[in-house]
Amino acid sequence: MNGPAAQLGQRILDDIALARHIGVSVSAYDDSGLVLTAPLAANSNHHGTAFGGSLFSLAVLAAWGLLTLKLEERGVRGAIVVQKSEIDYLAPVTGDFIARAHAPDERELTQLVNLVKRRGRGRIRLTATIEQAGVSAVRFAGSFAVMRNGEET
Amino acid sequence: MNGPAAQLGQRILDDIALARHIGVSVSAYDDSGLVLTAPLAANSNHHGTAFGGSLFSLAVLAAWGLLTLKLEERGVRGAIVVQKSEIDYLAPVTGDFIARAHAPDERELTQLVNLVKRRGRGRIRLTATIEQAGVSAVRFAGSFAVMRNGEET
Repeated sequence: MNGPAAQLGQRILDDIALARHIGVSVSAYDDSGLVLTAPLAANSNHHGTAFGGSLFSLAVLAAWGLLTLKLEERGVRGAIVVQKSEIDYLAPVTGDFIARAHAPDERELTQLVNLVKRRGRGRIRLTATIEQAGVSAVRFAGSFAVMRNGEET
Repeated sequence: MNGPAAQLGQRILDDIALARHIGVSVSAYDDSGLVLTAPLAANSNHHGTAFGGSLFSLAVLAAWGLLTLKLEERGVRGAIVVQKSEIDYLAPVTGDFIARAHAPDERELTQLVNLVKRRGRGRIRLTATIEQAGVSAVRFAGSFAVMRNGEET
């Protein structure tokens, strides 16, 4: 895992109060995407399975984190906010779990970067899955808006 | 607020680890629905606004709590789980916020109760809004499955 990906975990914990209680950590970042991990214990409900709000939170953080890294690699720094999302709960999560945000294709990312550089803002749709013990338990998709904040490197 | 609604807040805090960190409390329950409240401080992100995962969590807890109360009033106890949901973030939330889950109409609720009593399970779609300082900032909708657990009163 490269430096920025390793630092992302700390940024999430520093910036987002609830992430500390969810117990978010970054476990992988490569061409296929970004993987965050969380423990069941901090996120369980009265059924002993993971709370739907915790699963949503880890998925949205994975997608947000992935986009943050992809844009910074391309010299774009900006505010990234989720605008809308859908989540399907396919199976109960009964142990520690991961959220895997899937890298958008290169063409789509280039379009977004160009749009943000030219017009100051753009939008992209990202997907993520929650997996536990290798099984997909949740499907997440969200639209994210990017607003350049003038700190372009 | 009647006894069961007042107790619901404690049940949420007892049962769902993350709810304690979100700082959920029940502030109203009447014919129009259920209102939960949460403070911004525990739920803020690096923009100083409420984290999308916190907003989702409060909305899904409001819908889940409303359905729990409505079913218990009708003598049905069971497991209620969210199956899928959609959330639209309309405006940033810059202060303490509420989630208002809207009561389903009586006919729809009666159909659900009959289905759960006859077949042991049913499904219903519920909506909620997040409001801050009287303004709608988030729209939430979710499908919930109800499975009777044999503890019918």
